[in-house]
Amino acid sequence: MTETAPLPPAGLRGRARVMILSLDPQVDGGRFAAKHIVGEPVVVSADLLVDGHDVLAGVVRYAPPQTDGTYAWKEVPLAPQTPGTDRWKASFTPDQVGLWQFTIEAWVDEFATWQWGIDRKLQAQQNVDVDVLEGVNLILQAARRAPPADSAWLEATAAALKAASSQAEQRQLAADPVLAQHMRRHADRATSTTHEPALGLWVDPVKARFSSWYELFPRSTGAKGQHGSFADVIAHLPYVAEMGFDVLYLPPIHPIGLSFRKGPNNTLQAGEHDPGSPWAIGAPEGGHKHIHPQLGTLDDFAILVKSAKNLSIDVALDIAFQASPDHPYVKEHPEWFVRRADGSIQYAENPPKKYQDVYPFALAGPSWQPLWQELLDVFLVWIDRGVRIFRVDNPHTKPLPFWQWCIAEIKGRHPDVLFLAEAFTRPKLMYALAKLGFSQSYTYFTWRTSADDLRGYMQELIRPEVARFFRPNFWPNTPDILPEHLQFGGRGTFMARLILAGTLSANYGLYGPAYELMESVARPGSEEYIDNEKFQLRSWDLNNPNSLRPLMKRLNTIRRENAALQRNDTLVFHPCDNNMLLAYSKTEVDGNNVIFVVVNVDGQHKQAGWIELNLAALGIDPTQTIQVHDLLSDERFHWQGNRAYVELDPASMPAHIFKLRRHIRSEKTFEYYL
Amino acid sequence: MTETAPLPPAGLRGRARVMILSLDPQVDGGRFAAKHIVGEPVVVSADLLVDGHDVLAGVVRYAPPQTDGTYAWKEVPLAPQTPGTDRWKASFTPDQVGLWQFTIEAWVDEFATWQWGIDRKLQAQQNVDVDVLEGVNLILQAARRAPPADSAWLEATAAALKAASSQAEQRQLAADPVLAQHMRRHADRATSTTHEPALGLWVDPVKARFSSWYELFPRSTGAKGQHGSFADVIAHLPYVAEMGFDVLYLPPIHPIGLSFRKGPNNTLQAGEHDPGSPWAIGAPEGGHKHIHPQLGTLDDFAILVKSAKNLSIDVALDIAFQASPDHPYVKEHPEWFVRRADGSIQYAENPPKKYQDVYPFALAGPSWQPLWQELLDVFLVWIDRGVRIFRVDNPHTKPLPFWQWCIAEIKGRHPDVLFLAEAFTRPKLMYALAKLGFSQSYTYFTWRTSADDLRGYMQELIRPEVARFFRPNFWPNTPDILPEHLQFGGRGTFMARLILAGTLSANYGLYGPAYELMESVARPGSEEYIDNEKFQLRSWDLNNPNSLRPLMKRLNTIRRENAALQRNDTLVFHPCDNNMLLAYSKTEVDGNNVIFVVVNVDGQHKQAGWIELNLAALGIDPTQTIQVHDLLSDERFHWQGNRAYVELDPASMPAHIFKLRRHIRSEKTFEYYL
Repeated sequence: MTETAPLPPAGLRGRARVMILSLDPQVDGGRFAAKHIVGEPVVVSADLLVDGHDVLAGVVRYAPPQTDGTYAWKEVPLAPQTPGTDRWKASFTPDQVGLWQFTIEAWVDEFATWQWGIDRKLQAQQNVDVDVLEGVNLILQAARRAPPADSAWLEATAAALKAASSQAEQRQLAADPVLAQHMRRHADRATSTTHEPALGLWVDPVKARFSSWYELFPRSTGAKGQHGSFADVIAHLPYVAEMGFDVLYLPPIHPIGLSFRKGPNNTLQAGEHDPGSPWAIGAPEGGHKHIHPQLGTLDDFAILVKSAKNLSIDVALDIAFQASPDHPYVKEHPEWFVRRADGSIQYAENPPKKYQDVYPFALAGPSWQPLWQELLDVFLVWIDRGVRIFRVDNPHTKPLPFWQWCIAEIKGRHPDVLFLAEAFTRPKLMYALAKLGFSQSYTYFTWRTSADDLRGYMQELIRPEVARFFRPNFWPNTPDILPEHLQFGGRGTFMARLILAGTLSANYGLYGPAYELMESVARPGSEEYIDNEKFQLRSWDLNNPNSLRPLMKRLNTIRRENAALQRNDTLVFHPCDNNMLLAYSKTEVDGNNVIFVVVNVDGQHKQAGWIELNLAALGIDPTQTIQVHDLLSDERFHWQGNRAYVELDPASMPAHIFKLRRHIRSEKTFEYYL
Repeated sequence: MTETAPLPPAGLRGRARVMILSLDPQVDGGRFAAKHIVGEPVVVSADLLVDGHDVLAGVVRYAPPQTDGTYAWKEVPLAPQTPGTDRWKASFTPDQVGLWQFTIEAWVDEFATWQWGIDRKLQAQQNVDVDVLEGVNLILQAARRAPPADSAWLEATAAALKAASSQAEQRQLAADPVLAQHMRRHADRATSTTHEPALGLWVDPVKARFSSWYELFPRSTGAKGQHGSFADVIAHLPYVAEMGFDVLYLPPIHPIGLSFRKGPNNTLQAGEHDPGSPWAIGAPEGGHKHIHPQLGTLDDFAILVKSAKNLSIDVALDIAFQASPDHPYVKEHPEWFVRRADGSIQYAENPPKKYQDVYPFALAGPSWQPLWQELLDVFLVWIDRGVRIFRVDNPHTKPLPFWQWCIAEIKGRHPDVLFLAEAFTRPKLMYALAKLGFSQSYTYFTWRTSADDLRGYMQELIRPEVARFFRPNFWPNTPDILPEHLQFGGRGTFMARLILAGTLSANYGLYGPAYELMESVARPGSEEYIDNEKFQLRSWDLNNPNSLRPLMKRLNTIRRENAALQRNDTLVFHPCDNNMLLAYSKTEVDGNNVIFVVVNVDGQHKQAGWIELNLAALGIDPTQTIQVHDLLSDERFHWQGNRAYVELDPASMPAHIFKLRRHIRSEKTFEYYL
């Protein structure tokens, strides 16, 4: 012998035989918290592995957000998911928003293993006297762990088992389900394994999953030629509410800089009365915590928030972390900006382009700590003023560690606050922002136009690996983006894109009134609106009879009345022989509320085709007759079998949103629709 | 204000803007070490994410197994993997076996970002005077970090840049590749991000990837009717070596218990001269560290190991952690076994089946620490006696934490040792054992017979997520398993299964001489050999003219001469219109050494069909003529295009193993075959 084997350290917990792998839901091996919605059951699962064939038992342990620095752990028993797969699961329903914790504890169930063994031996009529004694010991050990009431019962049962005089009696006592229940309750967990660390689960309000956003520029809500104010926005609220939107998103409402102010159509020279871009934040009147004087006062803002709330609308603010050269920060905290070699402050640039009206913050500069503190305070100030939803401008141009810290700090204090990431950048960076805490994200939907592209993109987004952390919010347009198909596609395309956004994605939004009034003129060669409200006031004819306002109202009503459209995870696509028709269905998790949508993605020409229905996904028997109710047109007809013919003319309506009702014969022998 | 924002803690490293995600290769989020082979480059990759459009730089940091408790870190620069994907990679080649470490460090490359910006501005003929000053500052900062020689050069360059009098001169100096090289070398890493923790990489000897196992019972190598000894095994070595095997695996070689000794064909009563099962380990002569007296002495064993080594054969020992009732441990350490309620020691059972000749160890019992120590010592003792490969019997019936600890302790001392897990159990448990450290694993190949099943199984095993930790070893038979298709499939099936095992999997093995002599009689209704050597001596007619010995020799020669067959990761299947033909190819990583195999999986009937060649996978131009050389028959012919006709008659040979040679016209204008 040239060496001696070492003694394993006691800290190894060598007696803990169960290994817990692939705990789910997790994001990047537990590095980030998965996301969830309050009031919905979350299924926790894991592989439980053990040597041999002993019976396992385990629990999901979970805790609501900590109070006073401690967690109040609860547990729910695990059950095998599919026999033979070593996968176990249990679910719990978070009843409050915030950062929950969960893990799994599992152990060898010695009593169940004993029950299994003695039963097999008794079936083979083997002598089980020793086994009985061992069972008695297990029960007496449990009695010592149990509180007095259970303890007495267990002791009595142990005595009865010991005294059992026949195999029949032994068998009956060993298999007693009440005994099994007691033994489970007082199981020996001294050698259990707990998955470490526990994983986080961000539980958000329902609005994180289902929301309908309407963006407008307050500046354009005034009388013609007049700068709009919060009072005008308040007067405008019934218009928004009547269409059924539940988030009113406002571009930045702060004082606007004068230095290098941009004129209409992004020209470099602003005229005396040009209002400038709301994203050039900061003027002598104040910065990110203040209100542009022409919009009103903090009191006016408070009335707006309250008036909106009365109409079930949340006001969402745009948070754009950048400053105009006139921002008070520039004088008070020049160290929060990048100073160039000539002593000047660095303005935004994307060489050779210069954006001299905007100074970026030096978020990773030497003074990052007080700067981060101040920017966090910007959020907290508006939260204090009643705002619960923020649309964050270009978060991908600010350091990722800042968002991770800032959002965690905010949600730790205000777990009901939501953040929409306005990042149109590379996929992994968009995903990273969502992992770091953003509740919802802008997407590539704006440029996905063909049926193939839309199908592929949605299939990517609803993969559980992605959906655990990334919640898409589909926008057919934004003040920055008038995509080519809306410039030239006409009314049919506007309708189709609206319906696609609102039925493919449970979260969607649009920039109005440009959308309902089908504003389609861009600065030539660009995807930028001409005469953009970013740089000037606009006057919109809200009562234009061509407005898509009635369709928006109809769509939002359908979304509100049909839970299937309030989630993405049940989305299934159905093949169609005409690639201009996109057919898909959504249901509730339990399979109810079957919504079947067909959209003619060619918004300009009539398209017809045969759809091959995935009846299994729809929960429909091939022999059933289905009542098909178009919630857009209110027409009803019937389908049977797995093929359906559809014809859609964008001149009238480029889509069907069908509600499918199964024809069912009840036990009372008359027919009704579910 | 009802609250104040907190200052972020300095420990946050808020200035470290780069985020590193999905570091690869990793197993279960870094919880287990990925596996690798010495001398082969390992590609390390990760997503590097940063805000904005700054240029990134980074390195893979890696360290060989620690010596004296410290790591000697080296690094290699990262390069983008595919533009626009945020994925970066670099590779290094471990030059020794053992547990390596790797991680990634990445940072914003301020100088490269500056270069990009000034170039764009110069292209647009903008004034860059301030940019030049900033570049000068960056260079002077690097000079302060650099050693004197580089420092002087950098200072001179900074001065030259500062003095540049024209845009042309500024541009030339800014773009100087030598300057860029210096700046990369002395990059500012103060705000870099390093992925934590570093990940482990188990670097194994080549034999972990490519090995040919031959299992035999030493007891049957003697003269007819005589118990074989190590001397007989030594005499047998040339037979094994001539067939081309490089691992000789012996069932347990320890003293065999007498109590409850099993007789021939697993009967409960052994006769006086019955040798018993080698897996009933332990007798008065000793236990797991001792040798069964009829086999010889420790010296004999040493000669066997040395003689085998001289023939390039490793002797692999079977480690079966269980004891006969006569094992010295039973008396010396009764606490290492489970004591029943009646004071007896628990024998192995799978109720209602009893295995009274075997006591399991109480590996998760109260005395687990000294027991683990002793069992680790068993390995160390045999390692000390020259053994480097262990086949572990039923590891899935011993606690997983034991293997994790035991294998880590052994490999920490002897990183060249390999472990083959003999676990035929549920997939996730087999995978878990591999994750915990087993170098190779038995598989379901033994029962996968149809072309579809074989294709599906291999595709599962070669997925990178699996191949990172699980190395299959394909066995067409074992002493425990004579599968039904070998019982009734005849010679053609024996040949086909041999070739499948040895060409689908780079590691394979078989139990001989039962295999080459096509022993096919089972105990009726079972997959167990009749008159199994586990319970009795057998005499084999090694010179039987029907023996598959020549085919084994041919196959092992082909495997040795063709690197493509020494790995699994390049395996590609090719469709065939006859589902009894399985067609697949393997190449070296660089695409060379193209081996194309077709096996008639119906070992009993002639099968013919058209194969659709995946020419891209073969690296073949559709217009090329391919020389096809059957390495089994030595016949040569030609293919052109992507369809090939194949006809295989198991009566002669159920397979082709083609070497494909591309017909290439070299620059010297004459033709040759690669």
